Amino acid sequence: MIEEKLKELNIAISEAPKPLAAYVPAVKAGAFVFTAGQLPMSEGKLIAAGKVPSDVSLEDARKAAEVSAINCLGAVKSVVGDLNKIKRIVKVSVFVNSAEGFTDQPKVANGASELLGKIFGEKGKHARSAVGVNELPLNSPVEIELIAEVEE
Amino acid sequence: MIEEKLKELNIAISEAPKPLAAYVPAVKAGAFVFTAGQLPMSEGKLIAAGKVPSDVSLEDARKAAEVSAINCLGAVKSVVGDLNKIKRIVKVSVFVNSAEGFTDQPKVANGASELLGKIFGEKGKHARSAVGVNELPLNSPVEIELIAEVEE
Amino acid sequence: MIEEKLKELNIAISEAPKPLAAYVPAVKAGAFVFTAGQLPMSEGKLIAAGKVPSDVSLEDARKAAEVSAINCLGAVKSVVGDLNKIKRIVKVSVFVNSAEGFTDQPKVANGASELLGKIFGEKGKHARSAVGVNELPLNSPVEIELIAEVEE
Repeated sequence: MIEEKLKELNIAISEAPKPLAAYVPAVKAGAFVFTAGQLPMSEGKLIAAGKVPSDVSLEDARKAAEVSAINCLGAVKSVVGDLNKIKRIVKVSVFVNSAEGFTDQPKVANGASELLGKIFGEKGKHARSAVGVNELPLNSPVEIELIAEVEE
Repeated sequence: MIEEKLKELNIAISEAPKPLAAYVPAVKAGAFVFTAGQLPMSEGKLIAAGKVPSDVSLEDARKAAEVSAINCLGAVKSVVGDLNKIKRIVKVSVFVNSAEGFTDQPKVANGASELLGKIFGEKGKHARSAVGVNELPLNSPVEIELIAEVEE
Repeated sequence: MIEEKLKELNIAISEAPKPLAAYVPAVKAGAFVFTAGQLPMSEGKLIAAGKVPSDVSLEDARKAAEVSAINCLGAVKSVVGDLNKIKRIVKVSVFVNSAEGFTDQPKVANGASELLGKIFGEKGKHARSAVGVNELPLNSPVEIELIAEVEE
């Protein structure tokens, strides 16, 4: 059902990111899956780089948040196999690489939140934090992690 | 019992914040409630805005942390109905909008921690992180989220 | 077994940090332990202070991440008593005090991740976030918190 919804939205969940040396994309513990912080990587590259909105426009940052959220789902998939096992997207944390004076982090984060709503409906309604930070890995405009509740 | 304590401390837990389009104030999953990041909003407005301590004094930031913590409890209440169901305040994360050179984030966070201690006693003793960030939504001086363990 | 591994690696897990007034080093809730954010304190003092890499070199920041991770284990130990009860290091969050233009937060965080891998093997493979922030408590170069799954 989720796979059909993803097809309808034209979203491809990439194969599980390769396990890295020191950590993994996601861990399942009890009924929860915790993802690592995900960047807006597509085909191995950031889709945008720099601070919002001086280097990356609000609209592009929103799109980067969407891609980061998709990568979070790839991370969840890497440990549960089937996204239909997701009972609830519980919590989403959004870090926005913020130029001085930028206070619209929630508008960036909406890219992730609205996409999760489209994919999962009621199950996609999550608690969320959006904060600004001064630097992110690889100069990414956004980094997102999430916690999902899954069938055990 | 908690309601009486709140009355004694003259704290009003506002009605559950209205559900927003893309996310919700809190989610209950298993025995845990995860809140969204809460700002020091009172009657629909931030009680202070700007960086600590250049725009907002340490004392005012402490007060903002108290109000944010109260709003976290409002978020928990929105999903469990009765704050007596809280078995433990587990984790509190405090993001402080920090001017250059400000390193007293824990003193700001104490506003939240001490209030939770007054309200919940032993059940209010939580693990906590306090970090500085360069920007927050709406130019808020502080953003707080928490995890509570609740009766199922 | 973990104690022997720690001895082999010449790592001393300090006695549980003293409970502070307003919060505690860690909380166990269900099968999870959530730690407070830990700084690279050793014998009551930060082992380094300032921003990475302008004040603190990447190598020293890596070392600070190791010490912070060790302190996280001390926090876990304070609530479970025996580190053999850890079934999995689930999630590690690393905040790096970042000078302008520093985007190698993952290299700093690897200090913590690789150490946890050495100590816990497969059980130490965690999900991780690494973000840059503009200020941290006491001007610490790094702050780390973790979530562990433990035997109930």
